[in-house]
Amino acid sequence: MYNTIKIRIITPVVSRRRQPPSDQDEYSERIKRLAGLSSETEVDRVRIEKGPPSIESRYDDAMATPDILRLIKEAEGVDGIVVNCFCDPGVKAGREITNIPVIGPCLASMLVASSICERFSVVTVLKEVVPAIEENARMYGLMDKLASTRYIEMPVLDLHKDEAKTLEALVEQGRKAIEEDGAQALILGCTGMTGMAEKLSEEVGVQVLDPLPTAVKLVETLASLRLTQSKLTYPVPPEKTMIL
Amino acid sequence: MYNTIKIRIITPVVSRRRQPPSDQDEYSERIKRLAGLSSETEVDRVRIEKGPPSIESRYDDAMATPDILRLIKEAEGVDGIVVNCFCDPGVKAGREITNIPVIGPCLASMLVASSICERFSVVTVLKEVVPAIEENARMYGLMDKLASTRYIEMPVLDLHKDEAKTLEALVEQGRKAIEEDGAQALILGCTGMTGMAEKLSEEVGVQVLDPLPTAVKLVETLASLRLTQSKLTYPVPPEKTMIL
Amino acid sequence: MYNTIKIRIITPVVSRRRQPPSDQDEYSERIKRLAGLSSETEVDRVRIEKGPPSIESRYDDAMATPDILRLIKEAEGVDGIVVNCFCDPGVKAGREITNIPVIGPCLASMLVASSICERFSVVTVLKEVVPAIEENARMYGLMDKLASTRYIEMPVLDLHKDEAKTLEALVEQGRKAIEEDGAQALILGCTGMTGMAEKLSEEVGVQVLDPLPTAVKLVETLASLRLTQSKLTYPVPPEKTMIL
Amino acid sequence: MYNTIKIRIITPVVSRRRQPPSDQDEYSERIKRLAGLSSETEVDRVRIEKGPPSIESRYDDAMATPDILRLIKEAEGVDGIVVNCFCDPGVKAGREITNIPVIGPCLASMLVASSICERFSVVTVLKEVVPAIEENARMYGLMDKLASTRYIEMPVLDLHKDEAKTLEALVEQGRKAIEEDGAQALILGCTGMTGMAEKLSEEVGVQVLDPLPTAVKLVETLASLRLTQSKLTYPVPPEKTMIL
Amino acid sequence: MYNTIKIRIITPVVSRRRQPPSDQDEYSERIKRLAGLSSETEVDRVRIEKGPPSIESRYDDAMATPDILRLIKEAEGVDGIVVNCFCDPGVKAGREITNIPVIGPCLASMLVASSICERFSVVTVLKEVVPAIEENARMYGLMDKLASTRYIEMPVLDLHKDEAKTLEALVEQGRKAIEEDGAQALILGCTGMTGMAEKLSEEVGVQVLDPLPTAVKLVETLASLRLTQSKLTYPVPPEKTMIL
Amino acid sequence: MYNTIKIRIITPVVSRRRQPPSDQDEYSERIKRLAGLSSETEVDRVRIEKGPPSIESRYDDAMATPDILRLIKEAEGVDGIVVNCFCDPGVKAGREITNIPVIGPCLASMLVASSICERFSVVTVLKEVVPAIEENARMYGLMDKLASTRYIEMPVLDLHKDEAKTLEALVEQGRKAIEEDGAQALILGCTGMTGMAEKLSEEVGVQVLDPLPTAVKLVETLASLRLTQSKLTYPVPPEKTMIL
Repeated sequence: MYNTIKIRIITPVVSRRRQPPSDQDEYSERIKRLAGLSSETEVDRVRIEKGPPSIESRYDDAMATPDILRLIKEAEGVDGIVVNCFCDPGVKAGREITNIPVIGPCLASMLVASSICERFSVVTVLKEVVPAIEENARMYGLMDKLASTRYIEMPVLDLHKDEAKTLEALVEQGRKAIEEDGAQALILGCTGMTGMAEKLSEEVGVQVLDPLPTAVKLVETLASLRLTQSKLTYPVPPEKTMIL
Repeated sequence: MYNTIKIRIITPVVSRRRQPPSDQDEYSERIKRLAGLSSETEVDRVRIEKGPPSIESRYDDAMATPDILRLIKEAEGVDGIVVNCFCDPGVKAGREITNIPVIGPCLASMLVASSICERFSVVTVLKEVVPAIEENARMYGLMDKLASTRYIEMPVLDLHKDEAKTLEALVEQGRKAIEEDGAQALILGCTGMTGMAEKLSEEVGVQVLDPLPTAVKLVETLASLRLTQSKLTYPVPPEKTMIL
Repeated sequence: MYNTIKIRIITPVVSRRRQPPSDQDEYSERIKRLAGLSSETEVDRVRIEKGPPSIESRYDDAMATPDILRLIKEAEGVDGIVVNCFCDPGVKAGREITNIPVIGPCLASMLVASSICERFSVVTVLKEVVPAIEENARMYGLMDKLASTRYIEMPVLDLHKDEAKTLEALVEQGRKAIEEDGAQALILGCTGMTGMAEKLSEEVGVQVLDPLPTAVKLVETLASLRLTQSKLTYPVPPEKTMIL
Repeated sequence: MYNTIKIRIITPVVSRRRQPPSDQDEYSERIKRLAGLSSETEVDRVRIEKGPPSIESRYDDAMATPDILRLIKEAEGVDGIVVNCFCDPGVKAGREITNIPVIGPCLASMLVASSICERFSVVTVLKEVVPAIEENARMYGLMDKLASTRYIEMPVLDLHKDEAKTLEALVEQGRKAIEEDGAQALILGCTGMTGMAEKLSEEVGVQVLDPLPTAVKLVETLASLRLTQSKLTYPVPPEKTMIL
Repeated sequence: MYNTIKIRIITPVVSRRRQPPSDQDEYSERIKRLAGLSSETEVDRVRIEKGPPSIESRYDDAMATPDILRLIKEAEGVDGIVVNCFCDPGVKAGREITNIPVIGPCLASMLVASSICERFSVVTVLKEVVPAIEENARMYGLMDKLASTRYIEMPVLDLHKDEAKTLEALVEQGRKAIEEDGAQALILGCTGMTGMAEKLSEEVGVQVLDPLPTAVKLVETLASLRLTQSKLTYPVPPEKTMIL
Repeated sequence: MYNTIKIRIITPVVSRRRQPPSDQDEYSERIKRLAGLSSETEVDRVRIEKGPPSIESRYDDAMATPDILRLIKEAEGVDGIVVNCFCDPGVKAGREITNIPVIGPCLASMLVASSICERFSVVTVLKEVVPAIEENARMYGLMDKLASTRYIEMPVLDLHKDEAKTLEALVEQGRKAIEEDGAQALILGCTGMTGMAEKLSEEVGVQVLDPLPTAVKLVETLASLRLTQSKLTYPVPPEKTMIL
């Protein structure tokens, strides 16, 4: 009677390192645990083959998008798709070319945060990505709920070099967001920070949203409710022959 | 390894009819089916004992609220609470007196609708409840996404007298919302309409949100993600002795 | 030729102390003096019998509301009603069940402040009531005019224990609101502070609104102009039998 | 013990006809009756000597303003000033040069309407004044509450040529505002319509605000509460020598 | 003393037809005439080599963007860049990778329209592009000025098949925008309509903005004023090795 | 083939000093250089004869306006008009009485700033003019883009007494706007500061807009594009006989 729900995570950055199949399972279990998924929901992961090694600008975002769209187009037999980057690259265009619900971690975590507080702050990696995140908030109609966007001045690929230092920086900026900017909850502003929400929450004493698990769970919610993006908002693109 | 998530639905209207225990199971199965819940999520229902037989005004809402708050205070061993009325009665106050996540169908469906479209309309029962629904949208900071609030001129307690007629009225107002008001998705504006979303969606050709299952699934999402309402937004009330 | 206008103040907190009738007159004269009312306007006061001893949370607000609504329903021979608490408890529901104009001190003082400046701050009692006040401002469509909501960290029932200390705290927060938040006028954020506006204004050098007298005078304005709440915004609730 | 409050109405249009002193009393009594003022409030009227015979454009407004400002500067022994035109000409500048509270009928009636409903419409004279009225609403931060601005296609100086016809046109546009635009109350959009609110209200069944009496009563409210425009919003202009 | 200003137009759609060099001059002269440029401003045009033949969806936009970015990166010796499509594809990312001012026709025409009216409508090609245009308006913070987005149900590549028919359709939708939606000026919502503004304006009697010439002239304005996009809004992307 | 575009600058302050004709040419060349105009655009200047010596309040603005309007009405043979004061005095009314495009430096620079960044700050002369500038931003619908309005506490007529000191004060406030208020670009908030943008930009490292040259160039843009203010926004005032 209970149907399995299959969620696909698209990682929109290239990696020179080949993942062994066992990694896939481990990753999948980790996400399921972080998102608190039921045994009936499955998670897999695919990765783009052309694009940047990390996304830290609208330029990186734009260069990753065509291959994200290819993976969205090719997705079959899945019930929900998450693009694994807080900039939500390719999500708007991707929603046009499939009937499978697609969501990004930024929209997902801003909406879930809106269900538990009135004003939240994002704590992200670099000053350079702040304008793109605020652009997202404005585009999603949620700018009034964004107390601030703070950053820890650390590139994505350095986040796991010294996790204690990363956490310390997150705590410092998180506290300022709460005390100076009026944040009532925090959102980790980079999916490279996945798994750090719980410790940060313990330190700063407010709810902290982990955007990748939040997006995975929210797309499961759409799938469970048999909902998908509106075709009036994301119409099917007219057919045409591209030169690529 | 997988923990059961228990959701409690508080029905905020009184009923003279005693529910036999078998009803409870049937109701629970129906909600689980509508919300597409996994086998590991359980749903039960309680009902207020003092208040109105239906909620169709802010006055009804206010008169139901003290007993809703009693049930929220008494809730134990549950992981999420949904107040089963589109006015979201008692939710704001209830969030202050518990650490269990509490949500209402109006906020839940407006946020989930915001994840799949840019502008949605609500189709509700009576003209009299329109101002309260728009007040909710304004309070939730989502007014810009509300294309319109339409009504079928039918009291809550008549919705199931002739379901074909109810559906017909929903289709008529739903179509107007799409064609005249620019709605890209619809929300049923009364939890008395639970179960009617699928047929309406087939008729009007856009996504339709069923607010009670949506709220049940969204509070499950909060529970899975180990999130609850922010205590900076919903502080614990100072202790005091009431005269009641 | 000139008709008397009778204003009723509903105090939405219980008191164990019985008021002697002479108190009534004294109270009435005090309010008339603070509001600068003409000799032709009369003020009386009633008090709820069931509810909290002070309102410092949405929970207190909700628990006071049913008895406030009883007093609004029973009001006869009066031309205007003010609910004496800055949270405006019961006002929205109360406006549905009477044709007598009803107003709360929060809405009244925010609107009158909007007639004399562009941005104002509220200075209230406790951090815990800030979210409810900001919710009011958002619901009233006046959030853009609210420079900040500051608090003096003093419970309602302590305000008159040492009035010099209370004033000092108000001056401190009022000055910060003006200098740091850009407030051009201040509103006392608790009707327990009634009578403290003049001294605060002298100290901080900007206009300070006293919310209870402001509400009394604004409801007199509605009565004089023969205006009352719109029945399209506050429709008469459908008749029904409550179980209470 | 009760002090008289003196309100001065500045009529910002020139007239070739000399008013006999008796007119003054009659006018005063009429305004007092319409505003429901107490016997302790007095009203007088002055008129500009240089400017247009009616205000139906921003150009007329600008040409009337210097003489309005002269009258505001010269005002002595009064407790409140109302500029008698729905465009609120000269009010912003006038507030800078006096400590007496100054208000215009547009701001006054929009704020008082905001105290009784969520959305109101203005019904004015000519299409040409609509942009100026909407500019006022935007400047006052009340645009979201303005359901529409409708007009009866009749110049100011024709309003009293056939009052039945004027009323008929008001009823027609008022009904459309209610039924098509969602207005919950109406505001007469020209002080030349003073006195027509009651009949219009009877015909259309919603509250109708008469802007001149509303402004007179609201400035009395400011005077009673010992409030005036904030000098942080309307600073005293630096002294300088004009060439005039 | 007067320096030549060189503007480059990037046409973000592929074409199988090879342009003879003479076309370049003719095109350039046409744009200069439509934009009313001085003899000292020069215009040239380049075209992407990979991407779609027309842009009618966010998907087309995303697929055209990498090659647009290549052309922006390669641009040398020019003083301003315009991306020739009303969706403004690649503009945000492109602004990060150059110090030359880059603008798109949608932002340019919405800002210039904001300098001459309060509310404008866009008339575009297909219903499918409406959500993307409204998304732009929201992202640019100009949604309140957008009276409506209307469409003529004609694909980009059909616009010049029967120009009289295209004009007729524009007139029909333009009139509705003015009469029903309150537009005070119109913007052609597709740069395929370049050159049609004058005739449309004659027919409908309001100002009509032609977005490509408007963007060319506005980027000339930035160049003249020695302004370019802020590097705080469009930071230089961190250097990294892409796999392409 | 190329037509000359003639721009008239109206200086809305009186001066006792007679300008020799040579000054006119020098002034014109300076503005052309600052705005980077082509050799085909001409600039002349006229000055009001009645009004204040500087504009530092809404009162000054109102007193200057009638003579500004006379100069707008008399303007012949010009293609664009700029009113040379950051308060944009007389612009709204002036747009009603001519078909020549009229613009003010405040609107012009806020719109051009909106084309290069998301949030800008204004740095002006005195605290007293801040509310009028924020009123402009609100009226123009651009308040969300205004990060802050800072001032250097120096009257207009002192700006050139010690330019190094003026620049120093601008640098100080500009830096605070960037670092504390989140400004991504700056606007000089007084046309008395004309010519100081370049040096300020060098010091603070962000784009700085010089409002007078910006307005001159933007009105040239309107003239080139054959655009002018919409007559639906700025209708022709009904004819009437003023008493002046």
